[in-house]
Amino acid sequence: MSALTFLFVTMNGMPTLADIAKLLDLPLPAADDAAAVPITGVDTLAAATPSQLSFLGSDRLAKDFQTTRAAAVLVAKRVKLPADSAGKLILVVDDADLAVARVLQLFAPPVPRPPGGVDPAARVEAGAVVAPTAAVGFNAFVGARATIGARTVLHPGVYVGADTVVGEDCELFPGVVVRERCTLGNRVVIHAGSIIGSDGFGYRWDGSRHAKIPQIGTVVIEDDVELGSCVCVDRAKFAATRVGRGSKIDNLVQIAHNADLGPHCIMAGQSGVAGSVSLGAGVMLGGQCAVRDHVHMADGSMLGPCSGAMDDVEPRQIVTGLPAIPHRQFLREQAAMRHLPELRAEVRKLQDELCELRKLLPPTS
Amino acid sequence: MSALTFLFVTMNGMPTLADIAKLLDLPLPAADDAAAVPITGVDTLAAATPSQLSFLGSDRLAKDFQTTRAAAVLVAKRVKLPADSAGKLILVVDDADLAVARVLQLFAPPVPRPPGGVDPAARVEAGAVVAPTAAVGFNAFVGARATIGARTVLHPGVYVGADTVVGEDCELFPGVVVRERCTLGNRVVIHAGSIIGSDGFGYRWDGSRHAKIPQIGTVVIEDDVELGSCVCVDRAKFAATRVGRGSKIDNLVQIAHNADLGPHCIMAGQSGVAGSVSLGAGVMLGGQCAVRDHVHMADGSMLGPCSGAMDDVEPRQIVTGLPAIPHRQFLREQAAMRHLPELRAEVRKLQDELCELRKLLPPTS
Amino acid sequence: MSALTFLFVTMNGMPTLADIAKLLDLPLPAADDAAAVPITGVDTLAAATPSQLSFLGSDRLAKDFQTTRAAAVLVAKRVKLPADSAGKLILVVDDADLAVARVLQLFAPPVPRPPGGVDPAARVEAGAVVAPTAAVGFNAFVGARATIGARTVLHPGVYVGADTVVGEDCELFPGVVVRERCTLGNRVVIHAGSIIGSDGFGYRWDGSRHAKIPQIGTVVIEDDVELGSCVCVDRAKFAATRVGRGSKIDNLVQIAHNADLGPHCIMAGQSGVAGSVSLGAGVMLGGQCAVRDHVHMADGSMLGPCSGAMDDVEPRQIVTGLPAIPHRQFLREQAAMRHLPELRAEVRKLQDELCELRKLLPPTS
Repeated sequence: MSALTFLFVTMNGMPTLADIAKLLDLPLPAADDAAAVPITGVDTLAAATPSQLSFLGSDRLAKDFQTTRAAAVLVAKRVKLPADSAGKLILVVDDADLAVARVLQLFAPPVPRPPGGVDPAARVEAGAVVAPTAAVGFNAFVGARATIGARTVLHPGVYVGADTVVGEDCELFPGVVVRERCTLGNRVVIHAGSIIGSDGFGYRWDGSRHAKIPQIGTVVIEDDVELGSCVCVDRAKFAATRVGRGSKIDNLVQIAHNADLGPHCIMAGQSGVAGSVSLGAGVMLGGQCAVRDHVHMADGSMLGPCSGAMDDVEPRQIVTGLPAIPHRQFLREQAAMRHLPELRAEVRKLQDELCELRKLLPPTS
Repeated sequence: MSALTFLFVTMNGMPTLADIAKLLDLPLPAADDAAAVPITGVDTLAAATPSQLSFLGSDRLAKDFQTTRAAAVLVAKRVKLPADSAGKLILVVDDADLAVARVLQLFAPPVPRPPGGVDPAARVEAGAVVAPTAAVGFNAFVGARATIGARTVLHPGVYVGADTVVGEDCELFPGVVVRERCTLGNRVVIHAGSIIGSDGFGYRWDGSRHAKIPQIGTVVIEDDVELGSCVCVDRAKFAATRVGRGSKIDNLVQIAHNADLGPHCIMAGQSGVAGSVSLGAGVMLGGQCAVRDHVHMADGSMLGPCSGAMDDVEPRQIVTGLPAIPHRQFLREQAAMRHLPELRAEVRKLQDELCELRKLLPPTS
Repeated sequence: MSALTFLFVTMNGMPTLADIAKLLDLPLPAADDAAAVPITGVDTLAAATPSQLSFLGSDRLAKDFQTTRAAAVLVAKRVKLPADSAGKLILVVDDADLAVARVLQLFAPPVPRPPGGVDPAARVEAGAVVAPTAAVGFNAFVGARATIGARTVLHPGVYVGADTVVGEDCELFPGVVVRERCTLGNRVVIHAGSIIGSDGFGYRWDGSRHAKIPQIGTVVIEDDVELGSCVCVDRAKFAATRVGRGSKIDNLVQIAHNADLGPHCIMAGQSGVAGSVSLGAGVMLGGQCAVRDHVHMADGSMLGPCSGAMDDVEPRQIVTGLPAIPHRQFLREQAAMRHLPELRAEVRKLQDELCELRKLLPPTS
């Protein structure tokens, strides 16, 4: 829809409030005159200008609501509107975040892409097959016998190694490196600076040096995966490191050799999974967390931010901490920790009191 | 001053101790003959050669002072000089670190830069405006309608996206990627491998997949910001992700969508701020720390290394730990933690003793 | 051996079980007919096909052993074989991991490399010396007066700055940046996207801004070092940041200015050492750990994953936690932490009981 609606915007000017209500399948707001007001964008309640739309998803921001200059506000059903909201243009929605996500598509400018075909400054090596509808940008490199699928875009400076297969409708942003013999599915997006298929980190001390263990495997990135910037997905020792379909990976994430991510996993920024970690379906990893090598996190489990999973995690279990423990237990321990210094003092006092008490008792002869 | 003083060095040979004393506005050291000794560089007390300068900023290194071979030593006023320092050439300064920083400028070799103008192997797209005094290096790419300000240097392989504005006197090192529609102020330095303007990490589970939330905003890097290598600053969901003027960011740092950093913030290596985090003026983040989404850290507050701020932080407050708590409290808890195993044993003992005591008492009938 | 054995494979087809037994210096397995079976690769017990080899290194995977379809299994001596292992082809080895590492070399495909010489799309600046046997790939850049040693390979898009020396038999993967005046020894491997020689992170608040401290030093990477992807090794403030010979560094690692790593150190993924850290010989750092500035970790010491060393570490000492403490103490504290919430309750109960006891005693008049 994004491309179509943008076309709509550029051909017809800015969308009106009426357009937005229609997109969200809502009745027009009370003040009918306002329906024709063109909306130029979206911002927070505090920052929105009189030509922008804003949103209110929680009671916490009710104060900002009263002072916003926004042309109209998407308000979540569950929010209790302040008494003095009369006179403000309001669109009540089930879920403000979801509504904003949909409205943003109306304003999404197209991503600039190299034109279809192979740029004269690009290099395509012998035996590579580039679909006629693909775009290979300035200074991009396609290795021998590699395949670039239909409508796939390689932005400037992208490197695709020999024998690697990139599917259809993929987008590799500037500077992405995909080494040899890797496989990318369809609709895979990799943001600038990410590196796929470097050697896994494997050595053995042979008595005088760390001898390298060959990393002869490969990497498979399944359909609909999106990787952020400066993500590293290492080549397997043997077989393949795998990122399951529909998984979404944030910036600066480490995925080590032979890791196996199920479908629809989430890894937030600066998190990492060590070698041979396996994640089930829909596993979610918080920012800066880590999973120890060979650990299995079962379907639907979650690891909190800044946490480290050192042991297997049960389905749908939420674990937190270093080492990670069940989240409720973590909260109980943290609450107790806040009182630990006093607890020591209390124990000292008990010891003293007990000592005093004993003196009051008759000697046991 | 750096360029001028370097010119001085290359035109006149190495600076003498007299030159250094003059730069630091100090009286010449006692041994006048030594004033003409050429100094070839700076190193630690242990490593300095007889033609190098060294420094002593704390009593801790007094032992190294006694054995140093350095031609002369910058000594901080507060340091108690060892008794046997006679015969050593000493320049007493208020602050040894600051003095070293100034002296280093005398020896700073110029950074090699591409010559002014556009390299024949670079690509400048239609409608881009490159200042005549700017340098666009080998294989650099300047997108359509982008602007490159006066005296700005794009090193080899830099990518500047369409409609992006790069101010004056900026320096983008090899391989830097700045995506479309971003804005860089003046005197912005970005080290090699950093990525500005990738999509923020935003999805919504729609029942069958993580649906992408459009990230239609942009990035604003204000004047005098310096970013290290492999830093990721993501494009905002709407409006702009902002790095305030004069802020300094170390390597491998994550700055997520809609984060807003005030002026003069510091983020040490491998730290990260999640979505919509706001930092006031002069906030300092230690290495590998993290700030949770939507958290506000007020002016002058600090987050310790390896810590995670999960809640708002007060002005000038110092917080540490996972989750971060006031630093003093953190230290008290850690001190208590060191005794926690014994504490359990002590409580067991108290329980036993109390049990024994009770037996000594007459039965309550 | 890798190249030779690969040659063997490609010239003679897949290796047989007899070839593998010979490589490992083992007697042929019992079933002699099987010796001629060609083996196509290596995989886990669960995933191996009937033409692949697998391995069993610990009792934990005995269940998988019983159901594996592998053509043969390398079994570690120490593993108790399940009773029903008859009929399975087994090669008993001292160390299954080591045996696998050696066998993998039989299957390692050659890394695709640019041909020897300078690619017409590369740039070699004035005064640079490229050995005739070196390969400078597509779009690589070699700065003025730089040296590229014999048989060294610069993959596409590599940047080597002015006056930098790259030794013999090095391999720099796509997009690697080595800034000016750095020194790389022989047989150094740097994976894609790593950045060597950016300015160290040094500023001083001068009352109105963070003034930059010149970083005039350099970086020395000694012989046989391997760096992963997106690794940052910063230029020293003065003298050199050094990575000692034979050290192995994983992805997304930060090595700050003036850090000094001894020989044969290991840094796992996303770990970091701050400024002026010194590591002795064979120091091992776990994933996501950090070492505070100026800390010394002595020979053979280890820092656990997700830990932070804030103070010096003794030779061969193992430390863990935030802040890092001796590993045994860390385990004792963690065990106690699991009971901390109950401990509080127990202390409350003791207080109540003591109070009750006191009432039973005669008043002290």
